[in-house]
Amino acid sequence: MRLLLAGLLTAVAFAPLHAAEEKGAPARPIAIAVHGGAGTISREELTAEQEKAIHATLREALEQGHAILREGGSSLDAVTAAVKVLEDSPLFNAGKGAVFNCAGINELDAAIMDGSTMNAGAVAGLKQTKNPIELARLVMEQSPHVLLIGEGAESFGRQHNIAMVDPAYFQTPERRRQLDEVQKREGVVGCGEEQVVEDFDEDRYGTVGAVALDAGGNLAAATSTGGMTNKRFGRVGDVPIIGAGTYADNATAAISATGHGEYFIRAVAAHDIAARMAYGGLSLAEAANEVVMKKLKDMGGGGGVIAVDGKGNIVMPFNTSGMYRGYIDVKGETKTAIFAE
Amino acid sequence: MRLLLAGLLTAVAFAPLHAAEEKGAPARPIAIAVHGGAGTISREELTAEQEKAIHATLREALEQGHAILREGGSSLDAVTAAVKVLEDSPLFNAGKGAVFNCAGINELDAAIMDGSTMNAGAVAGLKQTKNPIELARLVMEQSPHVLLIGEGAESFGRQHNIAMVDPAYFQTPERRRQLDEVQKREGVVGCGEEQVVEDFDEDRYGTVGAVALDAGGNLAAATSTGGMTNKRFGRVGDVPIIGAGTYADNATAAISATGHGEYFIRAVAAHDIAARMAYGGLSLAEAANEVVMKKLKDMGGGGGVIAVDGKGNIVMPFNTSGMYRGYIDVKGETKTAIFAE
Repeated sequence: MRLLLAGLLTAVAFAPLHAAEEKGAPARPIAIAVHGGAGTISREELTAEQEKAIHATLREALEQGHAILREGGSSLDAVTAAVKVLEDSPLFNAGKGAVFNCAGINELDAAIMDGSTMNAGAVAGLKQTKNPIELARLVMEQSPHVLLIGEGAESFGRQHNIAMVDPAYFQTPERRRQLDEVQKREGVVGCGEEQVVEDFDEDRYGTVGAVALDAGGNLAAATSTGGMTNKRFGRVGDVPIIGAGTYADNATAAISATGHGEYFIRAVAAHDIAARMAYGGLSLAEAANEVVMKKLKDMGGGGGVIAVDGKGNIVMPFNTSGMYRGYIDVKGETKTAIFAE
Repeated sequence: MRLLLAGLLTAVAFAPLHAAEEKGAPARPIAIAVHGGAGTISREELTAEQEKAIHATLREALEQGHAILREGGSSLDAVTAAVKVLEDSPLFNAGKGAVFNCAGINELDAAIMDGSTMNAGAVAGLKQTKNPIELARLVMEQSPHVLLIGEGAESFGRQHNIAMVDPAYFQTPERRRQLDEVQKREGVVGCGEEQVVEDFDEDRYGTVGAVALDAGGNLAAATSTGGMTNKRFGRVGDVPIIGAGTYADNATAAISATGHGEYFIRAVAAHDIAARMAYGGLSLAEAANEVVMKKLKDMGGGGGVIAVDGKGNIVMPFNTSGMYRGYIDVKGETKTAIFAE
């Protein structure tokens, strides 16, 4: 599969409504983008088979989401479906295949936001919820709260019959190997005090997410993650922090982030992109570029975002060597990519 | 004690540097503000004795923080000291005197942010940490993470010898009475599914916080809370969400919020004030007013913020009937207040 996205800032800027109308496509644009994590992704480490599997899974997530949008479904349903595909795949750091924390346990976080109502739901520190994004959505729709954590979140999920699994379901030999390698390199097995920020590697990033625009003009964003390999027990990254890793507002954009979460929290990265559009008059591409390629990069925060605005413009900037990503744009064109081109 | 602050928007706008220099005060402005929660506060419910105690404790918090600033200490130290006074008081919903969740347990959240470095630390779901703000600061300074939750957060605190207490320490008869009253009114004892957002009362808000400007020109914000009476087990509000309830950036302002946290999260309230200043060119007073008196009010999000900018301008807007609050401004003048005047 070819890598078609050009440049660090993969801006796909169309004038979608006009273009679509001219070509006889549906008058109301729909679009979806997904990511499967950013970081140091080297061509040497990925076998041709792995690359192929990653492209195929990204494409499957896009197609499931896009089918919903084509049938007039909501962007909320589309991003939920797309993220579930990525959670269920062992290839990505969310749901099955999540990374291990320093105690050798998987702790899962997720968030979803509805740009039409500004409603949001988020969960953190899950250990048994098969699809964290489903529980995040349940929190949004069925609880008076935005963020539920730990056992309280999962007991709420059980009350509503969300699928639970044995914690072993999430574990893969590859993620165990990664934890062992990191702990061996750092000389600390378990959750020692010696962990310091300098020890983080870009290759420990990873998250999945989706953003979409539906035919009703509504934007939605969803993100799900296992966090960071060897993270401290109880650590929560940017994913469930509305405004940091996940944000959607019909007036600006839907944004899902991936990267070194601590920097995305401190930068309030997703909301900062929306705010530069709303108050500074920047386009989505300009705003996302400033936050990812300047602000976060200057802070030392490696990672990227996917974002879509109300016209269906998609951007996917990242400041690392790679980001698993893809989109189906307003013209119906599908592309997936891993490396910067 | 008189209630001196006028209007819903308590804007205290000075030209601090010039004013201070003319009067022979230190050339570099220092300022501090605190809050002890916003909500429906009726004069009838507060006895004269309670009012007096609230004013005295707000003043004590201000004075401890201001003493640090006067001696050339950092705004981080000042807000930490001020919040500790409010946590230690049973009068406010943070630390001792925190409200009960639906399971009859106290779960405490806190956050702190350093506007000079954009470093931040936050904790959520604590059950034994005497001063949550101290643990938030420890997370900021001694861990590679921003947000630690639950047992993971407290085990990190224990490693660093943070003071732990028996959970009974936090409990007061008045908070128990409030929980019983709410659960009786709603007809659900414990954590039922029947809790719906419409059931929230303004009188269940409450949080403490502090913002400060030090002589080095550095801003800091700190917030601490027990959350909301009868909250679901595991619910996290806006306080530990950097950008929602707590934010500081030397380029704009230090902000600490109190109110119906779910709305503050969805509005990314604290960062939205800073963003309107940074990208929209608004003053602190204009930006805080738009977010609290328009955006949040229109969403239905009751509450308020305290904020200080790099010149020492202090604002304290709130859209509820009262907010426990006070400040010592750049002229050294101390004021505390409860109701809108």
